[in-house]
Amino acid sequence: MLFDKLFNPKSIAVIGASRNPNKVGSAILRNIKLTYKGKIFVVNPFADQIQGIKSYKSILDIEDNIDVAVISIPAEKVLDALKECEKKKVSFAIIISAGFKEIGGIGQERENELKEFLKRSKIRVVGPNCLGIINTDPSVNMTFVDPNTTVFKGSTAFISQSGALLSAIVDDASMNNIGFSKIISIGNSTDIDEADIMDYLREDEKTKAIVLYIEGITNGEKFLKSLKETTKKKPVVILKGGRSNETSSAVMSHTGSLAGNYKAYQLAFEEAGAIVVSNVDDLFNFMRDAAKFEVKTNEVVIVTNSGGGGVITADHLYEAGLKRAEISEETVSALSKILPAESNLHNPIDMLGDASPERYKETLDIVSNLNKPTIVIFSPQEMSMPIDTAKVIYDMHLKKPELPLFPLFLGGTNVEKARRFLIEKGLPAYYYPNEVVDIIKGLYFYYSHRNPTYKRYSKERVKIVKFNVNKNAFGINAKQFFDKIGIETVNGMIIKDEKDLKEKISKLGYPCVLKISSNNVAHKNKIGGVITGIKNEEELIKAFKDLNEIIKKNKLENANIEIYEDATKGNKKYVEILLGGHRDPIFGPMIALGIGGIYANEIGEVEFVLPQLSDQKIEELKDTKIGKLILSASNPEIFDKIISYIIRLGKFMQVNPNIKDIDLNPLIVSQSSAVAADFKIFVEAN
Amino acid sequence: MLFDKLFNPKSIAVIGASRNPNKVGSAILRNIKLTYKGKIFVVNPFADQIQGIKSYKSILDIEDNIDVAVISIPAEKVLDALKECEKKKVSFAIIISAGFKEIGGIGQERENELKEFLKRSKIRVVGPNCLGIINTDPSVNMTFVDPNTTVFKGSTAFISQSGALLSAIVDDASMNNIGFSKIISIGNSTDIDEADIMDYLREDEKTKAIVLYIEGITNGEKFLKSLKETTKKKPVVILKGGRSNETSSAVMSHTGSLAGNYKAYQLAFEEAGAIVVSNVDDLFNFMRDAAKFEVKTNEVVIVTNSGGGGVITADHLYEAGLKRAEISEETVSALSKILPAESNLHNPIDMLGDASPERYKETLDIVSNLNKPTIVIFSPQEMSMPIDTAKVIYDMHLKKPELPLFPLFLGGTNVEKARRFLIEKGLPAYYYPNEVVDIIKGLYFYYSHRNPTYKRYSKERVKIVKFNVNKNAFGINAKQFFDKIGIETVNGMIIKDEKDLKEKISKLGYPCVLKISSNNVAHKNKIGGVITGIKNEEELIKAFKDLNEIIKKNKLENANIEIYEDATKGNKKYVEILLGGHRDPIFGPMIALGIGGIYANEIGEVEFVLPQLSDQKIEELKDTKIGKLILSASNPEIFDKIISYIIRLGKFMQVNPNIKDIDLNPLIVSQSSAVAADFKIFVEAN
Repeated sequence: MLFDKLFNPKSIAVIGASRNPNKVGSAILRNIKLTYKGKIFVVNPFADQIQGIKSYKSILDIEDNIDVAVISIPAEKVLDALKECEKKKVSFAIIISAGFKEIGGIGQERENELKEFLKRSKIRVVGPNCLGIINTDPSVNMTFVDPNTTVFKGSTAFISQSGALLSAIVDDASMNNIGFSKIISIGNSTDIDEADIMDYLREDEKTKAIVLYIEGITNGEKFLKSLKETTKKKPVVILKGGRSNETSSAVMSHTGSLAGNYKAYQLAFEEAGAIVVSNVDDLFNFMRDAAKFEVKTNEVVIVTNSGGGGVITADHLYEAGLKRAEISEETVSALSKILPAESNLHNPIDMLGDASPERYKETLDIVSNLNKPTIVIFSPQEMSMPIDTAKVIYDMHLKKPELPLFPLFLGGTNVEKARRFLIEKGLPAYYYPNEVVDIIKGLYFYYSHRNPTYKRYSKERVKIVKFNVNKNAFGINAKQFFDKIGIETVNGMIIKDEKDLKEKISKLGYPCVLKISSNNVAHKNKIGGVITGIKNEEELIKAFKDLNEIIKKNKLENANIEIYEDATKGNKKYVEILLGGHRDPIFGPMIALGIGGIYANEIGEVEFVLPQLSDQKIEELKDTKIGKLILSASNPEIFDKIISYIIRLGKFMQVNPNIKDIDLNPLIVSQSSAVAADFKIFVEAN
Repeated sequence: MLFDKLFNPKSIAVIGASRNPNKVGSAILRNIKLTYKGKIFVVNPFADQIQGIKSYKSILDIEDNIDVAVISIPAEKVLDALKECEKKKVSFAIIISAGFKEIGGIGQERENELKEFLKRSKIRVVGPNCLGIINTDPSVNMTFVDPNTTVFKGSTAFISQSGALLSAIVDDASMNNIGFSKIISIGNSTDIDEADIMDYLREDEKTKAIVLYIEGITNGEKFLKSLKETTKKKPVVILKGGRSNETSSAVMSHTGSLAGNYKAYQLAFEEAGAIVVSNVDDLFNFMRDAAKFEVKTNEVVIVTNSGGGGVITADHLYEAGLKRAEISEETVSALSKILPAESNLHNPIDMLGDASPERYKETLDIVSNLNKPTIVIFSPQEMSMPIDTAKVIYDMHLKKPELPLFPLFLGGTNVEKARRFLIEKGLPAYYYPNEVVDIIKGLYFYYSHRNPTYKRYSKERVKIVKFNVNKNAFGINAKQFFDKIGIETVNGMIIKDEKDLKEKISKLGYPCVLKISSNNVAHKNKIGGVITGIKNEEELIKAFKDLNEIIKKNKLENANIEIYEDATKGNKKYVEILLGGHRDPIFGPMIALGIGGIYANEIGEVEFVLPQLSDQKIEELKDTKIGKLILSASNPEIFDKIISYIIRLGKFMQVNPNIKDIDLNPLIVSQSSAVAADFKIFVEAN
């Protein structure tokens, strides 16, 4: 495969290996020598030999073929060295050196030059500004992480955009016996990026799960494509750093202001089937356990010798949206025969504080037949035997390897050995209730999202409508497009004069609304350009005159007065919904469905979806607060109509990349209709 | 003080000490013997001596005075033993034995007998069904926790309602060098409860912070009173187990359905100044660090040698509602003189991966002048020196002991010693960014909530109005009470007949609303008993006839037809708010302020407050989504009017304990008014 030579090179040259043990170039060579079985070459024009290996003046002086060159020399010399590598037909270079775009200024210039060179060259590059790469099987450590840090062999690959975080996590993993298949510090990803690596790891048999730390993505489309393909085969876990970065500049649209920077990332990652976490400790637990079990249901069994431990774990389950499995009559009856009378036979199944390993065994024998993810809590108490209990759990695992078993050993000194025993045997083992619940939640999310279907989406036939306008469109100017793509809008027309007004009201009827339509929406709101609840001709004519006055007074150009039906007319019960579109700079269009009207700004309850709606996402939408709100005022047919609007809005934004934001707010949703009452299309960046 | 003899007894008798090393009665004696310097007596009629101590047949045979009797005998014999203790004038008994109310049935009977006895007796009792009590200075361990578990001396007291959780946490603390002043397993708290212990610990000089694990409270008022007094003197941290318990039975009122079981606990605890946590690991960190620093601001400084670590920590700060402190020009300028050019001089202050201890020192010397809580991140990298960096942090602490310093050492083997060093020196030290942020958030919450003022509350003069009705009140029947207590309601009247109708509409004007008022509110909604938006006499008379038909058809007794003004009339811009009251069975009345109308059920955005509103809480309310929603449609005067409504509603519920729930939904809030448009008072349990 493409990157085989990178991860499993036959020969490595260290360009910039150093005699000074405190230098990066020395640590890299030391790390390679530690376990690598292939040929090692050293390039340093100022040394005869380094760490017992002959040093060449230039890579061109080496006679053997070189698969990977690890480059750790001052930034200004990197390009020249790379050119020599090209001449030498080196396949891959790992550029450790910093001093590129991350420092700006001259660094950015270097980065540009490097990029230019790589466009024309066959050599593929990891970095610059990275820690390097580690493979554990066969073992090669081409990084400068502390040589005292043991990197264990495991089945999880770790890709990190932060070198410092990577070394901390690898160090932590070393203390906790967590292993890796491969570790990649991706650096500036000037050439090879996360998606390229993920494409490779997807097919890598030694990698069962992939964990990423990401601060930003440059090519959203490429990354998502790779992610979607990868999650079909193995779990991918992502921690996104920089969630607190604010959205840039002023925001004019509701939808734009609701979509934070992070929302797009989270949404895109989750829609592509990734498990998204927010804590380093979760990242850590997934590194160890992401590939251990398939969690096929959100109904969880808790078995415990600690009432309090069971209670707290049940709390976390509830807060995570998971369920306690119902224990069938049959199972309760079986448990009642083996457990003391005071036990709780329902979930959490409390075997009491004096539960022996034997009692754990008998209980697990019974509840394992439920075939549900099972949390086994142990808390050290009088007579309790942690190691023997751990062995019972391990035996259960051997008997039923597919059963997702999650031992939770509360306590310290008394249970530490038991936890270690389980981890060494390849089972998970946790310290705290929230940890184990986070894992189960993530694994269930993965199981239920890794293979989305798009039946409903494919069914929808949407007309392609071009938005051939170069400026923001409001009022009738915007309405016409939604009419074309098949989103119902309230009746409305432009009024030429008073005569026209009288003609049009006869078609619309009272109550009605008069609005000024101008290119400056902010202005319109301030100057009182909307008059609602007009009930008769007298009010209508006065309103028309007032608005004309306002247009004159404010010297509005290209301003129209428009008349609209009252969209709530005839509806005893309705809700105001916001339907919107927002184009994220990295991931493209997102569609928003939220509480609308005056509530949109302050309450901000909103769900974002990608334009391509999976059947699973549609079901999930129904279960959100917004879904329930819509259904409380309407019915499944109207809900389906809104799904159709979402798909249509998405297509409209996809075929019109000039559109930045769309607000349909409010969308009046009632028993018999879903009608947009106000419409805005923004082409200016929000 | 009251419990001095309990925690620092001159003599202890172990009733039920056992020769069998596997019995609880043996472990207790072993634990006492381990460190206790006072007199130990043993009572066991079947033994001559146990663990080298002479055994008495009865406590009455002992000649010395006994301060504490620890009782570990079968439940059915406990009362007799206790009677002997009374005769012997023993001050305190700790009843370890289980088999009381926690097992129901005969156990409940035993509990009742015990309770009866204790009412008449001077002896004070901890338990039954508990693990016992530990004091570390002077040292005495009257529990059966594993004798291998070392309990270190510290300044935090721990009270737990779960024995199993207590032993797990003490075990974990032992592994992590976390010490305690006192540990109390409270058991069934038949006599001495959490509040009694807290009253004692409040004055205990060796206790600087108190941590509680609670599953339920029986006397809410007593507990809150003790808690409020205690948080004035020292931080109290509470983990509540059983958060997932659903509200009981069917709920008729909006407010009732919005108030979960846990909400009342959380609200009451936080209003009393407690730090409420939801994870065991947070509980753990607070045990160690709750009393270390005062955090007087929510503006936090981050100093880091790891870009990624800084980014993730900033994310957690943001998500926790804390702020990154602004770094002044002056400070930036000072930092620029000592840090490399590529450093980030703003917050997080990134000193780069090669930061030496010296660089940490110089940076801390500068930023310590900001006098803000400071997170110091260390991540192991090339050349980095964990221990020396830890020493630099410790030196800073010695120089400025009041400065809240939170070292965060990412990594494992390479930094573990540095973490231990800091902890041994009495500083905190964390593994993960979210932990350190949780601590800072909690300590800032404590600092800003421990001394609430009630100026605004005291200013409000509220009339006492009795709700002398024995059934639910809706419509005009309810409205009259709100009119009396000073909450504005929409104009409305009962209609006798068509003539009356015509008279009343002339006062109210169109549009108006007609409603059936009946005792069965659920019924009213189903049968279409509300007709809104009546615009003229024709519609009015038809509506009146329709409603009369409905009353006849459904054979409604005591049903009225009522007419109301349209509460939204004349308001161009308004929001629908829910103002409600709910009586929690433990903590009494809570007042709800949330999104109203049709949105109340599904969106459920709501803030609960206690009737006695602190000035701080009022400020916080302004900053919530609901507060902002109200202010978006009104102004500070109207907001203040709603505060007045909250206080009035609270008083009304306090003086009328028969009222269970109140719904004022919607409360129409506009630029010039806040008027309730519908009113319900429930006396039946929801």
